Amino acid sequence: MYESETAIRVRYGETDQMGYLYYGHYAQYFEVGRAESFRNLGYSYSRLEAEGIVIVVAELHCRYLRPLRYDELVTIRTSLREWPENSRMQFHAELFNPSGELVHVGVTTLVVLDRETRKKTSLPDPLLDLLRPYFFPGGT
Amino acid sequence: MYESETAIRVRYGETDQMGYLYYGHYAQYFEVGRAESFRNLGYSYSRLEAEGIVIVVAELHCRYLRPLRYDELVTIRTSLREWPENSRMQFHAELFNPSGELVHVGVTTLVVLDRETRKKTSLPDPLLDLLRPYFFPGGT
Amino acid sequence: MYESETAIRVRYGETDQMGYLYYGHYAQYFEVGRAESFRNLGYSYSRLEAEGIVIVVAELHCRYLRPLRYDELVTIRTSLREWPENSRMQFHAELFNPSGELVHVGVTTLVVLDRETRKKTSLPDPLLDLLRPYFFPGGT
Amino acid sequence: MYESETAIRVRYGETDQMGYLYYGHYAQYFEVGRAESFRNLGYSYSRLEAEGIVIVVAELHCRYLRPLRYDELVTIRTSLREWPENSRMQFHAELFNPSGELVHVGVTTLVVLDRETRKKTSLPDPLLDLLRPYFFPGGT
Repeated sequence: MYESETAIRVRYGETDQMGYLYYGHYAQYFEVGRAESFRNLGYSYSRLEAEGIVIVVAELHCRYLRPLRYDELVTIRTSLREWPENSRMQFHAELFNPSGELVHVGVTTLVVLDRETRKKTSLPDPLLDLLRPYFFPGGT
Repeated sequence: MYESETAIRVRYGETDQMGYLYYGHYAQYFEVGRAESFRNLGYSYSRLEAEGIVIVVAELHCRYLRPLRYDELVTIRTSLREWPENSRMQFHAELFNPSGELVHVGVTTLVVLDRETRKKTSLPDPLLDLLRPYFFPGGT
Repeated sequence: MYESETAIRVRYGETDQMGYLYYGHYAQYFEVGRAESFRNLGYSYSRLEAEGIVIVVAELHCRYLRPLRYDELVTIRTSLREWPENSRMQFHAELFNPSGELVHVGVTTLVVLDRETRKKTSLPDPLLDLLRPYFFPGGT
Repeated sequence: MYESETAIRVRYGETDQMGYLYYGHYAQYFEVGRAESFRNLGYSYSRLEAEGIVIVVAELHCRYLRPLRYDELVTIRTSLREWPENSRMQFHAELFNPSGELVHVGVTTLVVLDRETRKKTSLPDPLLDLLRPYFFPGGT
């Protein structure tokens, strides 16, 4: 499993008149979590795109457990729990409020595409090499 | 089943650099679909809030089948397929592109709360009365 | 002068915890106003991009006169008051609430660019021909 | 003058199909800049709201000098250049790209309101006391 953490502070413009983080903004928080996850691994998502890869979302599943409020610093724990197979990757996001409570769980299923053809492709080998130790610790 | 349709045109600011409607904006499209669904029934969501009810999202599930692009006029078909029970309602959203292809399926599970106490409550009787004929056509 | 009108209903996700349309979303409303303005003229902005033109914003000026609230149907009056010169166009947006009160005034200054080179260019002649009668009614 | 700096990384969902940070999102960046500015001073904006104050935007002026791109880390320099008078405050935001180039200038004029009555009021004395040394260094 590969896991990383980042933090986002809820912006005023992201709240709604109920006084909570609007339910539609969580997906963007996951995106930030995934981007930081790639960056921490040593292979930024913008580098992936520069090399002709785009990663699109095929499926999203969110469970809203507790609300988030303006100015709260949210911890986003992003994890890749299974080795990417057949151009598919699944990221889990767990969001924690400043009290450390789990407030949200999101799962995104992604598909790796060639930017030009928009056909399925696989992640570049150097990126897979960076991921491998987290999944096959004894080596393969 | 209660069903209604509305249309949204994809805004420039809703696209991302991939040239598609950003995956995080679909949730807002569902929100518009639900709001129009309530309005078509004759009981707007803003009236619900004025009467002390808020409806929060407990769960969201999205399947991205085909991308949507800038300026496309998207048809949103919103349906309530089961009678709301125990303060829970589930809305289905089906999105169609201008060619009539199904491009996205979203399901939101909502919980009805009292705005002050944030405790579960039920929908107001006059709203339930408007919904009833769609679920119990022979009357109850 | 060329003028057109369109309407947008304020979405829940566009409000903030103050209960008003968030101040950052007006720019997107202007964008919708400009897009509908081009469409009404008979030359959609997406056609412009398909022909290799992009229009970027150089300057934005907004005056917030009265707040807008969830579910209000906002009328956007978009006007081009001066003939586009030297790749520059200036659009005025006036927003009216459902009571017909002027609630917001926005002015965007745009620059027309070649999509590939990102150098200044001019609007396509067929689009200028559609605009001409509004500025030189006696013909030129 | 009171000045502070913060940084924001451009999110994927904030780009548009032109490949730039969408022009409508700058206002939210200014908001983050102002919030961090208050926090650095020792009096968070959320504390202000908790004490019954809201600050609304009366005017916004933006100049777009150079585009910003996905994943760029943007430095936001926020400054209050004049002592707040008559419930009005004006914040200047200067945005710099990772190369240190000035890419955007934004000025927001704010009005301080009582949250309940929505009438003009002044900032709380303890906040003014924190600001005073930056404007009247010799004391008043």
